Amino acid sequence: MDVAPVRDAQGDVGWQYGSMTAAATPASGPAFIRSDWLVLGGSAVAVVLAGLTRYLGGGAVPAFLCSALAVTLLAALVGRSVEQLGDRFGPGATGVLQSALGNLPELFISLFALKAGLVAVVQAALIGSILANLLLVLGLCFVVGGLRHGTQALGSERARGITVLMLLSVAALVLPSMASYVHTPAAPHEGTLSLVVSVVLLLLFALTLPASLKRGSSRLAEPTGGEAGAPRWSLALAVGLLAAASLLAAFVSDWFVHALQPAMAALHISDAFAGLVIVAIAGNAIENVVGVQLAAHNQSEYAFAVVVNSPLQIALVLAPLLVILSQLFGLAPLTLVFAPMLVLAVAVAVLITAFITVDGESNWIEGAALIAVYLIIATAFWWG
Amino acid sequence: MDVAPVRDAQGDVGWQYGSMTAAATPASGPAFIRSDWLVLGGSAVAVVLAGLTRYLGGGAVPAFLCSALAVTLLAALVGRSVEQLGDRFGPGATGVLQSALGNLPELFISLFALKAGLVAVVQAALIGSILANLLLVLGLCFVVGGLRHGTQALGSERARGITVLMLLSVAALVLPSMASYVHTPAAPHEGTLSLVVSVVLLLLFALTLPASLKRGSSRLAEPTGGEAGAPRWSLALAVGLLAAASLLAAFVSDWFVHALQPAMAALHISDAFAGLVIVAIAGNAIENVVGVQLAAHNQSEYAFAVVVNSPLQIALVLAPLLVILSQLFGLAPLTLVFAPMLVLAVAVAVLITAFITVDGESNWIEGAALIAVYLIIATAFWWG
Amino acid sequence: MDVAPVRDAQGDVGWQYGSMTAAATPASGPAFIRSDWLVLGGSAVAVVLAGLTRYLGGGAVPAFLCSALAVTLLAALVGRSVEQLGDRFGPGATGVLQSALGNLPELFISLFALKAGLVAVVQAALIGSILANLLLVLGLCFVVGGLRHGTQALGSERARGITVLMLLSVAALVLPSMASYVHTPAAPHEGTLSLVVSVVLLLLFALTLPASLKRGSSRLAEPTGGEAGAPRWSLALAVGLLAAASLLAAFVSDWFVHALQPAMAALHISDAFAGLVIVAIAGNAIENVVGVQLAAHNQSEYAFAVVVNSPLQIALVLAPLLVILSQLFGLAPLTLVFAPMLVLAVAVAVLITAFITVDGESNWIEGAALIAVYLIIATAFWWG
Repeated sequence: MDVAPVRDAQGDVGWQYGSMTAAATPASGPAFIRSDWLVLGGSAVAVVLAGLTRYLGGGAVPAFLCSALAVTLLAALVGRSVEQLGDRFGPGATGVLQSALGNLPELFISLFALKAGLVAVVQAALIGSILANLLLVLGLCFVVGGLRHGTQALGSERARGITVLMLLSVAALVLPSMASYVHTPAAPHEGTLSLVVSVVLLLLFALTLPASLKRGSSRLAEPTGGEAGAPRWSLALAVGLLAAASLLAAFVSDWFVHALQPAMAALHISDAFAGLVIVAIAGNAIENVVGVQLAAHNQSEYAFAVVVNSPLQIALVLAPLLVILSQLFGLAPLTLVFAPMLVLAVAVAVLITAFITVDGESNWIEGAALIAVYLIIATAFWWG
Repeated sequence: MDVAPVRDAQGDVGWQYGSMTAAATPASGPAFIRSDWLVLGGSAVAVVLAGLTRYLGGGAVPAFLCSALAVTLLAALVGRSVEQLGDRFGPGATGVLQSALGNLPELFISLFALKAGLVAVVQAALIGSILANLLLVLGLCFVVGGLRHGTQALGSERARGITVLMLLSVAALVLPSMASYVHTPAAPHEGTLSLVVSVVLLLLFALTLPASLKRGSSRLAEPTGGEAGAPRWSLALAVGLLAAASLLAAFVSDWFVHALQPAMAALHISDAFAGLVIVAIAGNAIENVVGVQLAAHNQSEYAFAVVVNSPLQIALVLAPLLVILSQLFGLAPLTLVFAPMLVLAVAVAVLITAFITVDGESNWIEGAALIAVYLIIATAFWWG
Repeated sequence: MDVAPVRDAQGDVGWQYGSMTAAATPASGPAFIRSDWLVLGGSAVAVVLAGLTRYLGGGAVPAFLCSALAVTLLAALVGRSVEQLGDRFGPGATGVLQSALGNLPELFISLFALKAGLVAVVQAALIGSILANLLLVLGLCFVVGGLRHGTQALGSERARGITVLMLLSVAALVLPSMASYVHTPAAPHEGTLSLVVSVVLLLLFALTLPASLKRGSSRLAEPTGGEAGAPRWSLALAVGLLAAASLLAAFVSDWFVHALQPAMAALHISDAFAGLVIVAIAGNAIENVVGVQLAAHNQSEYAFAVVVNSPLQIALVLAPLLVILSQLFGLAPLTLVFAPMLVLAVAVAVLITAFITVDGESNWIEGAALIAVYLIIATAFWWG
């Protein structure tokens, strides 16, 4: 009775960051399967192209597109390396590692953007990541899953648990903005208030870590883990690729940020829109595809958990970490005082998701409506 | 097993827009039953009175009251004609037709009001219709149903489905207001943004149509339909009365709008209050009575669906259509940038309704509290 | 089958305001048990100390602390006297009495504060009491209960009923603020609007009274009552102690308010923070401890009902009563136009609680997150 669910979990997990082929590969298979080669080769090509367009010229837009592609593929490579490290450290540690490293590209991009003084872009990208997950990706999941499989159930205990925690974290995240805008005496102290909130949120995250390590996932309820049978890669290969991919991701993130503003200027796209939509979607592309794939295969509860967990990570870890690092490293100081429209948009998105969760079911029309709300918000930010 | 629910549905439906007597009438009954004569005769008398007070004078207030009564009775006549057309076109088409024609009086009134430049009144009436349904009518349903039958259940899948879609539609509807008020760069583009939102909402409505046609109701989850057994009226009679009632409704709507401002001035009622309360209640009187009747007969889930469906129609169809028509016909341009208090009031109302739905039960004290919230909002708008 | 639940209810009730020992005491026990002596003696000592520090000097901070302690212990004594009056008047009347007298110390403090012109402090304390219950105390309940007993269930019908009513009452309570801030024509009429809302809320409370009297609890769903078996005190003793404790509470409330501002000035604490955090927690200390005790003993549904019922009482009775009394007695006129940050904070708290209720479960991490949100709000108000 214990073996079957474990196999299921392995299937899920191998499938999460890999292709369907990868999941089907037996543990005794070759060290590198086709999808590994695709990700590795694609990353290499994209990094080279990004480097060429960065240093040899060729226009801001190609440089931007190449670096965006390279960041995305490196993120996939990081995810895959962690998977292969997986059962060497146990599922709990793997989950924590994956959670920490999964947001690495977003962290790098944000740090370089802060170094370049693009505070508004970083703030928009943080909120934009939350919006993209809760509205666009969740909507796509509902549409794809609903059209294929009819009404889908979401209401697992875990899903509702993540939603409540996400609601609480986002509430904490936006309180400094509220205080700064409507409580005059707090406005001059927005930096201090942001630091306090960041420390509180990180403490809250730390409190969830023991349960995550025990349960096998630091993402609180996401059945990640990543050990598709026995590891295919040797320890040295996995660690080596992880280190290389992470290092390259840092470089490419720098190029991405460097190309961002000229490209946006060339395309007449406002800073707010660039952060909210473009950076947010580029930084989460892999996770987003995974969620939609899961919904397509009628694993609606799992898809929901994956999609909703990402904004939770942003509110609980990434945003607070950036606030603290921006002060430690002397970058442009990031505060949690977001533009009012960002606060309203995230409040709308979070409340809607929370209601859909407690409703316990989804259909494709609700999915279409979620996408519609996302498009309207994106349109409102079109005019920077 | 299939026959009984069909009969039940027929009973429901015959009863929805007709009196209890009508529902009890067998299919082989007379062409006109008593309640038909009452509606027809009442409409005729009210239209004549409205015409007289309109063109012969007699004061603004009587002219306003007569035209309001005439609009209401014509709305009932339109509903009844569509019912009789019912099973000739199948329940799906009937539902769509009913949905489209049910909002006809509100559409006419709004168009004439826009022609007269009363943009603020139309905006207040749109929000006011939503508020009246979600707070006042729902509250009355809970009080009447709860006092008669104790705690009532609401939590059908359908009811929750409508609520989530209503929540999403209202969120889309109020986003342009938020953008206009707090996102400075979007403010000059409020017309464009309103058009984009309107197109998105109408597309969303179009997506729901196939399911509605198949399911037998364009109102997404409302078990309307309208064929109380075999039709009592001949096709010619039904079409003729429908055309005549619709045409008259257009004229009388003009008179209603014409009398509105002088009557409000005579009664010292502000524009905001007139739109939010008086126009909103006059335009929805029939639907409102139906909902409360259903609750009184312990059909709480059905009553809930009818009452919550109406705001969904307003957000998804009526408001976007008016925005587009106001620009096509060169009327006073209607935007979706509502006064901030309207946005707050509708947000409060929608969130409360959503919680009451997921709570899954209602009692009369909750109903009294809903009415209390409505009264407080109306009071706040008393001072225009 | 009927006897066992009644015994359970008695156990619950005796335990609510008493210690565990009190609940276990048989009806034939001594008139005064140890915990009675502790409360009585403690109250006497605290009142004497408070009087001494008030009239003989000794610094603002000691005077403030002594009077806060005295108010808290007198509140416990009032609660215990009402319990002993309990079964002489039937559980319904006892519940109503308890509900009315339970808020007596808060009422006295608020009235004296209004007499001293501290309108902002009273407003902050009203909202602060709601926040403290919904975030801090509920969070403590979840943490204590969750760490001891794992995931706890909350989703009783009653709990959800109270939550919906609380949501509706708080919505009504904050509507005047919204109207005053965003609906310009209503702003000059904020006094009138506050009176209208107060009358509506008190009417709503009056409507709930018959059901409360019948059901045995005026707190709508809280299984209070207070008769731990037969009463231990004679009627004369109970009435005498009740009268004495209430009278003393009035005096000590005056001293508390008198010492408040100098103490806050000495401690460099802003008025907003003093009202929101310090007065709010001092006024609700007893109820708060009871709720956490219940959660610790795995009675999570009951604990939830006790904790959520308190904000309902504040919104439905205490706040409206203070608005009306402040005008009747010619005190500084209290309106329901709260500072915007208070409105936002209470909206966040109420929505979060409502979602946690419909979610139907709690764990200690959610509890920690609730406490985190409370700390962030309190921090935002630190800068007055």
